[in-house]
Amino acid sequence: MFQSFESTTRPEQGPPRLAALREKLKDDGLDGFVVPRADAHQGEYVADRDARLAWLTGFTGSAGFCAALKDIAGVFVDGRYRLQVRAQVADVFTPVDWPEVKLASWLKEQLPDGGKVGYDAWLHTIHGVSDLTKDLKGSGIELIATANLVDQIWDDQPPAPDAKFTAYPTEFAGEPHAEKRKRLPATLDAPFVITLPDSIAWLLNIRGSDIKRNPVPHCFAILHTDRTVDLFAGANKADDIHDHLGPDVRIHTSDTLLEALTQLGDTVSVDPKSCPAIIAKTLADAKISIHHADDPCALPKACKNETELAGTKAAHLRDGAAMVRFLAWLDATAPKGKLTEIDVVKQLEQFRRETNQLLDVSFETICGAGSDGAIVHYRVTEETNRPVRMDELLLVDSGGQYIDGTTDITRTVIVGAPSDLHRSCFTRVLQGMIAISRARFPTGVAGQHLDALARYPLWLAGLDYAHGTGHGVGSYLCVHEGPQNLSRRGTVALQKGMILSNEPGYYREGAFGIRIENLIFVEDAPAMEGADNRAMLSFETLTYVPIDRRLIDVSLLTDGERDWLNMYHSVTLAKIGPLVEGRTLEWLEEACAPL
Amino acid sequence: MFQSFESTTRPEQGPPRLAALREKLKDDGLDGFVVPRADAHQGEYVADRDARLAWLTGFTGSAGFCAALKDIAGVFVDGRYRLQVRAQVADVFTPVDWPEVKLASWLKEQLPDGGKVGYDAWLHTIHGVSDLTKDLKGSGIELIATANLVDQIWDDQPPAPDAKFTAYPTEFAGEPHAEKRKRLPATLDAPFVITLPDSIAWLLNIRGSDIKRNPVPHCFAILHTDRTVDLFAGANKADDIHDHLGPDVRIHTSDTLLEALTQLGDTVSVDPKSCPAIIAKTLADAKISIHHADDPCALPKACKNETELAGTKAAHLRDGAAMVRFLAWLDATAPKGKLTEIDVVKQLEQFRRETNQLLDVSFETICGAGSDGAIVHYRVTEETNRPVRMDELLLVDSGGQYIDGTTDITRTVIVGAPSDLHRSCFTRVLQGMIAISRARFPTGVAGQHLDALARYPLWLAGLDYAHGTGHGVGSYLCVHEGPQNLSRRGTVALQKGMILSNEPGYYREGAFGIRIENLIFVEDAPAMEGADNRAMLSFETLTYVPIDRRLIDVSLLTDGERDWLNMYHSVTLAKIGPLVEGRTLEWLEEACAPL
Repeated sequence: MFQSFESTTRPEQGPPRLAALREKLKDDGLDGFVVPRADAHQGEYVADRDARLAWLTGFTGSAGFCAALKDIAGVFVDGRYRLQVRAQVADVFTPVDWPEVKLASWLKEQLPDGGKVGYDAWLHTIHGVSDLTKDLKGSGIELIATANLVDQIWDDQPPAPDAKFTAYPTEFAGEPHAEKRKRLPATLDAPFVITLPDSIAWLLNIRGSDIKRNPVPHCFAILHTDRTVDLFAGANKADDIHDHLGPDVRIHTSDTLLEALTQLGDTVSVDPKSCPAIIAKTLADAKISIHHADDPCALPKACKNETELAGTKAAHLRDGAAMVRFLAWLDATAPKGKLTEIDVVKQLEQFRRETNQLLDVSFETICGAGSDGAIVHYRVTEETNRPVRMDELLLVDSGGQYIDGTTDITRTVIVGAPSDLHRSCFTRVLQGMIAISRARFPTGVAGQHLDALARYPLWLAGLDYAHGTGHGVGSYLCVHEGPQNLSRRGTVALQKGMILSNEPGYYREGAFGIRIENLIFVEDAPAMEGADNRAMLSFETLTYVPIDRRLIDVSLLTDGERDWLNMYHSVTLAKIGPLVEGRTLEWLEEACAPL
Repeated sequence: MFQSFESTTRPEQGPPRLAALREKLKDDGLDGFVVPRADAHQGEYVADRDARLAWLTGFTGSAGFCAALKDIAGVFVDGRYRLQVRAQVADVFTPVDWPEVKLASWLKEQLPDGGKVGYDAWLHTIHGVSDLTKDLKGSGIELIATANLVDQIWDDQPPAPDAKFTAYPTEFAGEPHAEKRKRLPATLDAPFVITLPDSIAWLLNIRGSDIKRNPVPHCFAILHTDRTVDLFAGANKADDIHDHLGPDVRIHTSDTLLEALTQLGDTVSVDPKSCPAIIAKTLADAKISIHHADDPCALPKACKNETELAGTKAAHLRDGAAMVRFLAWLDATAPKGKLTEIDVVKQLEQFRRETNQLLDVSFETICGAGSDGAIVHYRVTEETNRPVRMDELLLVDSGGQYIDGTTDITRTVIVGAPSDLHRSCFTRVLQGMIAISRARFPTGVAGQHLDALARYPLWLAGLDYAHGTGHGVGSYLCVHEGPQNLSRRGTVALQKGMILSNEPGYYREGAFGIRIENLIFVEDAPAMEGADNRAMLSFETLTYVPIDRRLIDVSLLTDGERDWLNMYHSVTLAKIGPLVEGRTLEWLEEACAPL
């Protein structure tokens, strides 16, 4: 079982650890220390060794930070985690509503006479530090890069993960790393320090197992203008990929990175949104001028090639068959009234495991029955586990990591009989999801321009959802990847080959949650009679799993929407039917019947 | 008649004027001089005196510039004017596709060994000059602020307009200028130099007649932190508004502006997007530090108060009645086959004049019959005038300036019988226009997030239009105003009281053009049963004039769209019916019958 349902922290662990940290503050002459959730690679997941925020405070959310001062310790969390933080931290910690309250404003309030606040420059980005510095201007508060004080008091801190990197075969990557290195944008006119592990994974066709869920290798890379690479990783971690990397990729141990930076010549490029501040400081100290640019791998990585798309299609069919077995099982079992959310998560993972190709789940399954469905980032634990009751909605958002692709799918189903409200809300969410699926749009359009298409049917009824419509998805990489997304913050033009999720939802607090999610990818829009001679793009669907027909109010659909849904179900039956049998196939046939 | 149909320039005037300018270049030791369309106020229209680009080159479009070098003179125009410029300029001028070709790139190509290029720092903005300077970096080309060389060779250059400013009564403005000055954003912590005439018009409740179409006063203002104002205008232009302005607004002549700037203390704010470069230079020379900020009047001006909204509603009913008389006349007259585009424009202006309240048209009427309709910014002249033929579409985009409001409306009608293609394209344009009209959306949403709603029905058929969906509109001010708009470039959050146009279209080159345009304004979304407790905004329609039912394919409409249209026509009949009579009323009743 990949997923666990235990709480990994206890509130009572926090106070002695905070006390120890405050002793360190005193020793070091500091007035505070900032402990972020992030590691040096700014990913969504961190290794146990890097779970400093959870260790110190008990808070296990995927974003946030603690500002530990002598008399107060603020735990800054966003809207998703306002309830969770209060359950997880002891009362020596003060939850702070972030980003409404900015760290600088809070520090200025808590340290009115100035003061010295330490931070670990590996864990904060260049932009993070420069923004904070700007916001603190005139306050007398000084930011001081120091060693990590948490590491100094964490006696049994786990070691760094030592599993070896593996080569990701061209059979799945579709392009040898030598070619990728060569075709990167011509703007690359200075060495580039790459710190995002999924960028390096893509560039060098390697994978790792340093953290859960995302098969990224923890390492740093310097991409030179001659397109050779220096790779910096923990000792021996690259032992198995020497031949794969070849002579143009030189392997070094991580501890030599900073020294190597000082030898890089006049100018070095970094992406200030993700690059650790310590790298900028090291370059500046060596009088090397720093050029800010987007990570050169981010966009090429997002635009999948034909091999990657073929792989992800295969992964989606395999995963879709597991999902269909799961939904058929759920339909047969849930009405008996014995299931809990944890039972559902376990059984779903079991079906995925039975593909014999599941390498990991791509994130912790979100399984929310009834009112739990309204908690957008709900993760069930033994404490919150809730029975799956009759006449309630069940929202299940899950995915798998396979060698050929990463999946992410949400289905919301009714157990028993739906209410009119269930049906009208579900249908509006579905209309938004169909609007994105059917979209055809000119080149240059970005996610921010399409997001409203998914919301419009809800808006007309005075409803909305408080998350983006979709995120980028990797190829056997991170289930959340940039730079593309479908949200009001999505400024990058959509381009051929980008994989995105399409997941509008609706959440009624205390009552139910609805989300319908397929993965889609961008392609050249197919030829169309009567169309203008104008370059347009469209989406092709990757996910083929039935959408609960019992929850659809057909009278709300336009002809075009109903046609799309019937087409979708007919293709689903054609693609997934051959992969299932017996009762599951019968269930699928019924679930895919035209409306 | 406000509108004229004559060509104001002739191509053969250009060559001797260019030759004279080149003599001046030689005298002044320059290699080139840039002649923009803009005046010092960066508006859409310029006074005759400021029509330097047209005088020099013959090109009369509303945007563009000429870079006159010793051996070549590039006339830079955007996509709207590619054909027009070729018809208007002599062959001593070289049309350049702008912004695809940037001025800096072109200069670098034409002046490979560097050179001195002059410009009039009154006519270029701070951002314009700084962007150009940045783009020229390393080229050896030097930008030199000089006197205006065109003015020096233009012997019969018209004088500056001398009409006096008038007070705009609180009866229409809704708020005395003293209150406006007081309530401007608290961020105003340095004197602000305001150079946009519509900002000053709004701030001080004054209007002018310095240019056609937009009743703005040409002047500059310094808004001080104590909320008093120094107003700089041509001699005697403010004679009639002394009492209106009162003691907190001090009046000066324009020629004292630069000297006054040097007395402003440590820091002065300007909006670099619109402020003439000469103002920045004057401040810098006086060692005054310059703070860049958005014009503080732009956003408050855009958010109309209840009085302004009441005024614009009244203006729209008055204008709507004139439009209905026009459309009824057109329907009766056009099929007889004797009308030309100019006849149509004249008759429409006549109906507006018969309201006895028309102060000007709000822009040159765009009247495109058949294939002329596909030219988005078409202005008919005696040379291009085209008969209105049977079975062709006629696109008419027009508006009026009234003391209580500014209107802008487009209707596309069929003369004779429509083709299936006319109907399917018209219906898709209408669906987009209805989608915006019905939109309800959360606060924080900007035009760029809504634009796609208007395009989606076209996109589904592989169609699109190459202009924004809507622009801001003033209150007896400019028919194009910022900062709000409905387009992919619209980043300003929509706010209560903003007036916008809603004008999707479709253009088939050589065949026809379709545009349907209403003005709308942003309001708090009305209460709705079942809606979330979430602040939402919606649009209320200002324009009530029938939409040609003969062009609608009802089978393409959803129930919601058809309901909206029937509601719209029923409200139109209720509002406009009492304002017309006889045959016009009969026509209106038929035009507003439910579908």
